[in-house]
Amino acid sequence: MHILSDSEIEKQYLIADAIRDTQDLFPKLEQGQILVEHRTVMELPDTHNAMLYMPCLDLKEKLGTNKIISIFPDNPKLNLPTTQGKILITELETGQHKALIDASYLTRLRTGALSGIATHYLSRKDSRVLGVIGTGGMAFEQVLGILEVRNIEHIYLYNRTNEKAEIFKEKLIKFGINAEINVVKDVQELVKQSDIINCATRSNESVFDAIDLKQGAHINGVGSYQPSMREIDIKAIEQSSKIVFDDIDGAKTEAGEFIQAEKDGLFSFDHAYSDLQQLALGNIDGRTDEHEITIFKSVGAAHFDLAVGVGVFKKLLS
Amino acid sequence: MHILSDSEIEKQYLIADAIRDTQDLFPKLEQGQILVEHRTVMELPDTHNAMLYMPCLDLKEKLGTNKIISIFPDNPKLNLPTTQGKILITELETGQHKALIDASYLTRLRTGALSGIATHYLSRKDSRVLGVIGTGGMAFEQVLGILEVRNIEHIYLYNRTNEKAEIFKEKLIKFGINAEINVVKDVQELVKQSDIINCATRSNESVFDAIDLKQGAHINGVGSYQPSMREIDIKAIEQSSKIVFDDIDGAKTEAGEFIQAEKDGLFSFDHAYSDLQQLALGNIDGRTDEHEITIFKSVGAAHFDLAVGVGVFKKLLS
Repeated sequence: MHILSDSEIEKQYLIADAIRDTQDLFPKLEQGQILVEHRTVMELPDTHNAMLYMPCLDLKEKLGTNKIISIFPDNPKLNLPTTQGKILITELETGQHKALIDASYLTRLRTGALSGIATHYLSRKDSRVLGVIGTGGMAFEQVLGILEVRNIEHIYLYNRTNEKAEIFKEKLIKFGINAEINVVKDVQELVKQSDIINCATRSNESVFDAIDLKQGAHINGVGSYQPSMREIDIKAIEQSSKIVFDDIDGAKTEAGEFIQAEKDGLFSFDHAYSDLQQLALGNIDGRTDEHEITIFKSVGAAHFDLAVGVGVFKKLLS
Repeated sequence: MHILSDSEIEKQYLIADAIRDTQDLFPKLEQGQILVEHRTVMELPDTHNAMLYMPCLDLKEKLGTNKIISIFPDNPKLNLPTTQGKILITELETGQHKALIDASYLTRLRTGALSGIATHYLSRKDSRVLGVIGTGGMAFEQVLGILEVRNIEHIYLYNRTNEKAEIFKEKLIKFGINAEINVVKDVQELVKQSDIINCATRSNESVFDAIDLKQGAHINGVGSYQPSMREIDIKAIEQSSKIVFDDIDGAKTEAGEFIQAEKDGLFSFDHAYSDLQQLALGNIDGRTDEHEITIFKSVGAAHFDLAVGVGVFKKLLS
């Protein structure tokens, strides 16, 4: 039984690996080589805490993963992370359980990879300015995902608590990011400048005003994961010509602002442009117009955890 | 993250521990302190192989378990076990994952504990003779469970392949079992002598004839786990006055001979005597008549895995 911690994985399995392994997943999904079951959610009574169990099998690689993740929203008060995950990897030739690997970094990394892939297809090729709204837990790998696919020269950072954005800036510099980085106190300034906007907040209301968007902007949203949540301005949903989801079934029950937009008659999941799989496989067009507004919304799914879990196993353990 | 192998658990967590921890589960079940979700079963196409995921939460102990088990029936050809299991243990105050422990021995042990508890309530107190039909993977801990609750002086062993019964006898002697042990080639001889009969086979037909049963015999069946399977004679089901299941919902879809008996109009799950929980809690009577035939049928359930998983964690790791 191999055991890998987040810090061991972080050194050896990078955003480029995650993007490649996620891209490789899509043809396997199309060919029926990936089996996914609905995840099991168990809520702990009288708390906001929940346990999630997400099994998935890769019949081509003959490896299965089960991500077990605890979501404890009050944990930061105890100086513990909100989400704590593990992936158990099982070899499907003989049923032997081979590895238990930490899944916190990998969950952030695969989400960054998804935004990277979507941004590759949907954003303007000449995008130079990235705006980051929300510099919390998920944001760092979001930046890595965008930098992997676009030549970003300037990064704007906005966070409700300004000091956290400053700390985030230092972290980016320390990591070796070469772009110019500015922390702004006014989100409007960020939105007006940005070719690509990444939202990763737990907000219950829009974190920007669509009126400030540049023509041809692309937006990634990875924050809202409950029907009550909003971060992307519903006016932006209304204005956009292409809305792509990582997992449309998940989005229907989790992506708060889209659920609201559908209720308001401004959007329909049935008429959504399509999902990332179709985009990445070339079955639908990416950006076709320099002026269109595009949106990618991610809620996650077990097969994306499988992609990076199997990727780590193959790169580091086999 | 603690890691425990089968052999480490085997030395320190014994049948008496498993019986005690399983007994302690029943009041918690009754008081709603145990949350169980339906297990997820994923079958691998074009094989007989399957992956099972069984999550369960103990709100009293504030510990959760998820048993992940692979069932690969052709594995013995490769000299590998048919079932390979792991239990991930999560602490539910903070959501921290604490241990990954082997679950092959524990699955056998908890099944032995269930038969032990049922036998305590259902068999004659003066039972002296145990008959074991099927000396394969599950049988050893079945014997341990019975010996824990009854003063067994004589054990009869029967197996389709006689040599395997001889090896099993040696294993019992080596373990320190004091009862007289006889391997028989004729199952009828075993049935006619036995006060308690334990069946643990993968048979698709009855492994004994009910006509040979002693008055007052008690039967434990842990083998059949698919609708096509039979091991307990349907005539015994018809004759018995008390039939108790470990998990009646599971039995309805898995306990082959009972499903068949219901189809034949000889038995009804709706009128089954009750389940082990009610028996162990004293809500229904155990044996009340020296002459009645009683049956306990076990198919397993996630909360029994939780009982021993949490038990190991508390005894060995906390």
